[in-house]
Amino acid sequence: MMREEWKRRRELVEKTLEAELDAPHILDETLGKSMLYSLMAGGKRLRPMLLMASADAVGGNGDDYIKAACALEMIHTYSLIHDDLPAMDNDDYRRGKLTNHKVFGAGMATLAGDALLTMAFEVLLRQKGVSDSAKVRIVRELSVAAGPNGMVGGQAIDLESEGKRIDCETLYKMHMGKTGALFRAAVRMGAILAGADEDSLAALTHYAEQFGLAFQITDDILDVTGDEAKIGKPVGSDERNQKSTYVTLTSLDEAKKLASDAVTEAKTALLPMGERAAFLSELADYLISRDH
Amino acid sequence: MMREEWKRRRELVEKTLEAELDAPHILDETLGKSMLYSLMAGGKRLRPMLLMASADAVGGNGDDYIKAACALEMIHTYSLIHDDLPAMDNDDYRRGKLTNHKVFGAGMATLAGDALLTMAFEVLLRQKGVSDSAKVRIVRELSVAAGPNGMVGGQAIDLESEGKRIDCETLYKMHMGKTGALFRAAVRMGAILAGADEDSLAALTHYAEQFGLAFQITDDILDVTGDEAKIGKPVGSDERNQKSTYVTLTSLDEAKKLASDAVTEAKTALLPMGERAAFLSELADYLISRDH
Repeated sequence: MMREEWKRRRELVEKTLEAELDAPHILDETLGKSMLYSLMAGGKRLRPMLLMASADAVGGNGDDYIKAACALEMIHTYSLIHDDLPAMDNDDYRRGKLTNHKVFGAGMATLAGDALLTMAFEVLLRQKGVSDSAKVRIVRELSVAAGPNGMVGGQAIDLESEGKRIDCETLYKMHMGKTGALFRAAVRMGAILAGADEDSLAALTHYAEQFGLAFQITDDILDVTGDEAKIGKPVGSDERNQKSTYVTLTSLDEAKKLASDAVTEAKTALLPMGERAAFLSELADYLISRDH
Repeated sequence: MMREEWKRRRELVEKTLEAELDAPHILDETLGKSMLYSLMAGGKRLRPMLLMASADAVGGNGDDYIKAACALEMIHTYSLIHDDLPAMDNDDYRRGKLTNHKVFGAGMATLAGDALLTMAFEVLLRQKGVSDSAKVRIVRELSVAAGPNGMVGGQAIDLESEGKRIDCETLYKMHMGKTGALFRAAVRMGAILAGADEDSLAALTHYAEQFGLAFQITDDILDVTGDEAKIGKPVGSDERNQKSTYVTLTSLDEAKKLASDAVTEAKTALLPMGERAAFLSELADYLISRDH
């Protein structure tokens, strides 16, 4: 059931993103193409799913918050474009396609990232059926989560840790920033938009934090056990690049147990919400069963 | 009189920016240093001045909107950091100091720019004494002005025009995006924050557009007639780089006339606001008299 709902919503996200980026809206044609190239390069649309499923979980209808969901995907996409740049990870391929800068050049890729990041806030405000006070709250959630104390902060720790062994605490801080903060914001934004009370918001925040942890550990596990064609990058690259991961810092078995515990804790946090949280619960299960 | 007011407010901006970037607030220490390095590298703080002076012009007190003013400076600073990157203009110096990436590396400089851009929205929302509905309006102004149809769009046109002769229309579009959009947003945000009526907002918007035009033409003139030490870059670089400018597309005399006409028109738009618009009026005068 989740698979079909996921597919339907993924298509809704992609249709909405395409409409937002409709060429005549963008001052420079190449810039528009570059933004759209990465936005439409596939992906699971996990952050929009989390936002929408979180709205469901507190009695709303996730579909109603499609613009806010798309804003999250724009932020995520910009972070991938900048992360792939020669000055950062210098990757030529992502999800089997050439990275943005390999197609449009590093200058245009930098600008496409900047544009997606900035425009995300504009799209967020185009969310309909929401009070100004809720809008202010979700803009705050997004800017804090994506900024120097969230996603960009995590990226900076990552950049500084290159070729260094780091301890578990730094690894945790890095991932809570790099990927955890945006997952957390996605879930919180969905809950805020659908008018969640404080208890539900706290429970969903806990879910999101455990979800983020499990996601990252699974990523590290897949780097060791995954299928190259499916994960879209060479297996064992973390080891070769001397990257500290949950697997290198503990063991494969220990990492699997950590991931499984985090998923259990995430799902436990959902119990008070009952059936309405089914999608969120299945998303957590998907995390440790995924193969890419 | 204006000089003293400008100095006082510049110091207020710098003190506030420093407090916002206070080290313990930032997840990664180097990232915080990199952000602060460029924020504190001097500059006229023209965009914060415009916001505050615009609030004055409609009967408010610009000082009350210092956080919103700082958000603008953060956006401006991020754009300079990214603009200087090897993948963009590849500049080693700005205002006589090493550019961000020469000190922190291109990866960290990219992140510092991303962080300043994102955090600007957070700082904007920390603006006190403002209704949620005004906050939503100013977030919208800023995201539209700084995004793909504003500043980043202008940068993209610039990147694509490198080494090409472009026509006057493209040049105008480029500058209205690259610098004009943020000037316009600064003035409009100040007016909105101070509760301007629609007529004043329209008049101030017209002022800002002419101000932006005059600013850019003067920049082009200074590239020909300026003092290298004062403008901080080699004189005649536009000509050598085959850059189309208002001077190369018309003539030095014609460009001077265009700038002077734009300033006159900008000041005329202020007439209904009388004495309260004195600072804005002097800022426009300063534009064509400046030597850097």
